Amino acid sequence: MSIITLTTDYGLKDHFVGALKGKILSEYSEAAIIDISHDIDPFNTVEASYIIGASYANFPKGSVHLIGVDMEFNKENQHIVMQWNDHYFIAADNGILSMLSQKIVPQKIVTINIHNRLPSGATDLDVFVKVACHIARGGLLNVIGKEIKNIKQVTDLQAVISDDGNSLKGHVIYIDHFGNVITNISKKYFIEVAKGRPYEIVLKTKNIKTILPNYSAIASSDKYPIKSYEGEKLAIFNEAGYLEIAIFRSNPSKVGSANSLLGLNYRDVIIIKFV
Amino acid sequence: MSIITLTTDYGLKDHFVGALKGKILSEYSEAAIIDISHDIDPFNTVEASYIIGASYANFPKGSVHLIGVDMEFNKENQHIVMQWNDHYFIAADNGILSMLSQKIVPQKIVTINIHNRLPSGATDLDVFVKVACHIARGGLLNVIGKEIKNIKQVTDLQAVISDDGNSLKGHVIYIDHFGNVITNISKKYFIEVAKGRPYEIVLKTKNIKTILPNYSAIASSDKYPIKSYEGEKLAIFNEAGYLEIAIFRSNPSKVGSANSLLGLNYRDVIIIKFV
Amino acid sequence: MSIITLTTDYGLKDHFVGALKGKILSEYSEAAIIDISHDIDPFNTVEASYIIGASYANFPKGSVHLIGVDMEFNKENQHIVMQWNDHYFIAADNGILSMLSQKIVPQKIVTINIHNRLPSGATDLDVFVKVACHIARGGLLNVIGKEIKNIKQVTDLQAVISDDGNSLKGHVIYIDHFGNVITNISKKYFIEVAKGRPYEIVLKTKNIKTILPNYSAIASSDKYPIKSYEGEKLAIFNEAGYLEIAIFRSNPSKVGSANSLLGLNYRDVIIIKFV
Repeated sequence: MSIITLTTDYGLKDHFVGALKGKILSEYSEAAIIDISHDIDPFNTVEASYIIGASYANFPKGSVHLIGVDMEFNKENQHIVMQWNDHYFIAADNGILSMLSQKIVPQKIVTINIHNRLPSGATDLDVFVKVACHIARGGLLNVIGKEIKNIKQVTDLQAVISDDGNSLKGHVIYIDHFGNVITNISKKYFIEVAKGRPYEIVLKTKNIKTILPNYSAIASSDKYPIKSYEGEKLAIFNEAGYLEIAIFRSNPSKVGSANSLLGLNYRDVIIIKFV
Repeated sequence: MSIITLTTDYGLKDHFVGALKGKILSEYSEAAIIDISHDIDPFNTVEASYIIGASYANFPKGSVHLIGVDMEFNKENQHIVMQWNDHYFIAADNGILSMLSQKIVPQKIVTINIHNRLPSGATDLDVFVKVACHIARGGLLNVIGKEIKNIKQVTDLQAVISDDGNSLKGHVIYIDHFGNVITNISKKYFIEVAKGRPYEIVLKTKNIKTILPNYSAIASSDKYPIKSYEGEKLAIFNEAGYLEIAIFRSNPSKVGSANSLLGLNYRDVIIIKFV
Repeated sequence: MSIITLTTDYGLKDHFVGALKGKILSEYSEAAIIDISHDIDPFNTVEASYIIGASYANFPKGSVHLIGVDMEFNKENQHIVMQWNDHYFIAADNGILSMLSQKIVPQKIVTINIHNRLPSGATDLDVFVKVACHIARGGLLNVIGKEIKNIKQVTDLQAVISDDGNSLKGHVIYIDHFGNVITNISKKYFIEVAKGRPYEIVLKTKNIKTILPNYSAIASSDKYPIKSYEGEKLAIFNEAGYLEIAIFRSNPSKVGSANSLLGLNYRDVIIIKFV
């Protein structure tokens, strides 16, 4: 079985996702197609990057990840395939894959060059489908592209350490279904900078002084039922390895969430002070 | 083929559902994974219970149903597997499965005890995936859990008969995509209590005196086109066997629905009077 | 592999789509089920018609397309199967399939007559599932229905040429996830009427004088980065072959869309003037 995952901003109301699956199955009927998300904020490459980085490792090695966000071929956006950490990623060279390549050196990158080999009227999506099926069937990257060394780097949302080394500045890069707020401060970078020092996550309301191992750890005392902790704010490193500010058992449409209650929005600054 | 169904409150915007599918396929590549719903109201165990009860019977016997709602393992919520009516249900012991076990005695219940056998860093979801794949492959419950006799009962939303036997009191337990209002009054219980007596479903506007066999039965006269009945209120026992109050061909965003037009909301009381 | 696609107005919150898939897999475990859309506007047969027409050709010949929109069997709505362009479409005879049959003559149409052969309590959906699986397994149409020659025609939303031949009047038939506005003016009809004449698409703001080959073609000059064209309005013939008015890289929830910015709504008139 060869897995092809899909991450797009197409939404689920229209026929685009179904049509994409039809194209894939017409080309390669044995493909196992798995949706990662089709509700990426339109043209938001930062969201797409976070989502693909947070999910790829759950799939078997050799999986092909097709990313249909801001993918129209034009003078600025080449189509590329990146072999990275034993997975394959197909996307436009618009920065989506640079968040991955900044962490681990890619095994191989090619710029797709089959556009002229397809029938006239073929769309950008047809190109991606052709390439995805080729790789899923075990085909080589050199057959569908030309090796390149570098991709476009998008660096405006990197977490940075202050000059005096006493604080870490990150940004909100994603707000999830529960209204939890995810930052670009990774557990790895935090440990490296913290060097075991006490810390405070600076918030408009009371600061958070402990990053918990999981949500339920908020229930620090056995004296009270877990229900009594609902609505309390907390911080964890999520499964993707990033600092997340959450409200315990939040329901955005009812009691509110970290997003609404703490006033934390996409691209807002988050500071961790070491004391 | 072994079917694993998924019912969660994860939403479809984030990568959580895709990641879950990746975990399952990494563990057991032949699993046929079917989504039941990922839009359960966050942490709403009553909704989850209704949805799983209304849908499981459409799947072949032996199917495995993974329920990811309020599933974090903690001092109050054990992880359990219930073999019931020849299906397998994996959930936290938070009341979700008690609506099923109150109708038919379960064949077997185990409390999952493999948490310590998984690699460190394994999450609650990893536990559920491991157990789901074990069962889907035909594995025995005793290998992954310890038999127990009882699960947590959630009984606050049972339909009840009045002391004089002349009325039945239920609650709204679910509002569907069309704004139709579903109550916890089952067809079985209604027939038992009604004993053939005439009845009225009490509403703020005119009462309903007939429960129809299907929606289109509202078109009682052949003289008028079906379109002329659009917007009329009606009651049926839905496919899940529960009393449902509906507006004929309602479109919640346009003409309104039973929910909006009749002012019936989640947890509201519904009375049937026998006359 | 036999593909069964699903197009419904059931939404994704409820269990209906999952239950439908369970029914299909219980009947025919080898079916490959693909979602086209479950967010058709409730009972909107025009939307359903557009979506199925725009997507079917992406699937292999012989695919079965089940359309669950306004499908309750009643005195006005027979259940039909249409073999058309080497695909099979199962729907109620409510006009959904007439948009297809007006373009190309169907190969065969039958009115489904198995309702009485199913167990009592079988629903309309059970009928559709039985028929879909029968066809997907290679069964003949005559086994499940009786041949008919005509289906119900829905013609209120046809693009029409003016009496003097100098303008073309169409309607908005669909608004997509990006807020792009799709009309019922097909590329084929436009070319036939235009006969190479210059034209203007009449809008409340400045008219559009060129229909582009693709979105990115809006970036007419190499002097400016593509980003500088974001928010400009444009027209293309979309993949489905219909005239679409769009805003370049629109995000409906942020900068607005053709729908919101140009004030174009469902069923609004669109005029092309030839000059």
